[in-house]
Amino acid sequence: MIPRSHPRYESLMTRELIVEGVKKGITSIQGLIAQGRGEAFDYLIGEKSLQNALHSEKVAAAKLLLARKPVISVNGNAAALVPEELIRLSELINAPLEVNLFHRTEERVDKIIRHLRTLGARNIFTQSDALIPGLLHDRAKVDSDGIFSADVVLVPLEDGDRCKALVDMGKTVIAIDLNPLSRTAQCVTVTIVDNITRAVPHISKFAEELKGLKKEELLEMVRDYDNKNTISIAIDEIKNNLESFSTYHDS
Amino acid sequence: MIPRSHPRYESLMTRELIVEGVKKGITSIQGLIAQGRGEAFDYLIGEKSLQNALHSEKVAAAKLLLARKPVISVNGNAAALVPEELIRLSELINAPLEVNLFHRTEERVDKIIRHLRTLGARNIFTQSDALIPGLLHDRAKVDSDGIFSADVVLVPLEDGDRCKALVDMGKTVIAIDLNPLSRTAQCVTVTIVDNITRAVPHISKFAEELKGLKKEELLEMVRDYDNKNTISIAIDEIKNNLESFSTYHDS
Repeated sequence: MIPRSHPRYESLMTRELIVEGVKKGITSIQGLIAQGRGEAFDYLIGEKSLQNALHSEKVAAAKLLLARKPVISVNGNAAALVPEELIRLSELINAPLEVNLFHRTEERVDKIIRHLRTLGARNIFTQSDALIPGLLHDRAKVDSDGIFSADVVLVPLEDGDRCKALVDMGKTVIAIDLNPLSRTAQCVTVTIVDNITRAVPHISKFAEELKGLKKEELLEMVRDYDNKNTISIAIDEIKNNLESFSTYHDS
Repeated sequence: MIPRSHPRYESLMTRELIVEGVKKGITSIQGLIAQGRGEAFDYLIGEKSLQNALHSEKVAAAKLLLARKPVISVNGNAAALVPEELIRLSELINAPLEVNLFHRTEERVDKIIRHLRTLGARNIFTQSDALIPGLLHDRAKVDSDGIFSADVVLVPLEDGDRCKALVDMGKTVIAIDLNPLSRTAQCVTVTIVDNITRAVPHISKFAEELKGLKKEELLEMVRDYDNKNTISIAIDEIKNNLESFSTYHDS
């Protein structure tokens, strides 16, 4: 048992959720390595949601509300870490979920679908009858009514190649990625440099706040969004944190 | 199969070795998360041995040659990633190995000892009849003839608390840690900010080069070593890399 008073309680509990996910067969063993990479970048941004990330989360909520056909992609790490939060967001913005795995096996897809249904998910795309152009077969499978035909896709924790392929299809892609240097962060429409455990509840909160606004007001809100700027600010924040560590150390 | 031409071949192969280690039961599942954190920091230093790291590796070799009773600590990740390189170093500098796990089980200790012996290790401390002061029981177990009474300990990939406890016992502690901000990096005598897969062969190479030197010459070599400086340089290197990513992105 990790005591609540432990200075790194949140981070350690998140780690336990991923280990749990591997034991349940919904998270791949490679997902643990991805979790470790994420931990390192979260540590470098100070394990908190930066002002900049909150702005991206608000813009993401507006874009999802403006979407004609939004879909939320769910991978093995997301299913282990924030299944209930994703279901809640899905209902709030009326965006179905679709399981979409990098290390795909039909068994794991089925397990995640069952896991999400057990937790109350009602709207899940479950076919794999279409292929994203430009990707190898198994990496390309999606639902023709889901991600394939969506105009806006929220991809928490997605591979760079696959994000780029979705962008190349003309979709608005919103990614949650703690590494501002990653190809995913660099190629998508909106990059949220934040931990998925903080980001998804934030998007839901903003979606609730913005739900009453007119379309024109939402469009106004997203008009000036500059993703390059988002990434630069996140990189600067990491540099500042390194600076303060370094100064602390020299003293 | 990962093709040799893949731009991230080394990193991906290293990942496969760790996954293999988990399957064999010598690496803990938490070891995968640690590997992911390491990958992130290795990425930030450019996945190469910096000049600064080479200097630490040379100083480490000199300190190990100067030691009265050197010991090399081996954990589950080290045993999966560089078992043969550790055995080679062990013979070169006449420093026995000792298995020392953070998530300790006797079963895993035995598996690693067998794994090392199969690969040719002849000199391994295998008792757990002493306790490092200041640590909880299971975390404190060591061999009274090994780490407990060593004057110099090489700890690849070690936890901060345990490094500090070894330093508090008056030992010279040499750590390999890709995160220059970690408590391990900050508290030990010599921090090698490098990937263990590059660091261990480097230490062996330097040990071979330095083996013929007189004690006075070795002492001269380590006299001006400043570990705070090592850490500052590594942090600066990460900042510079972030800068170049950032500049690349802006253009």
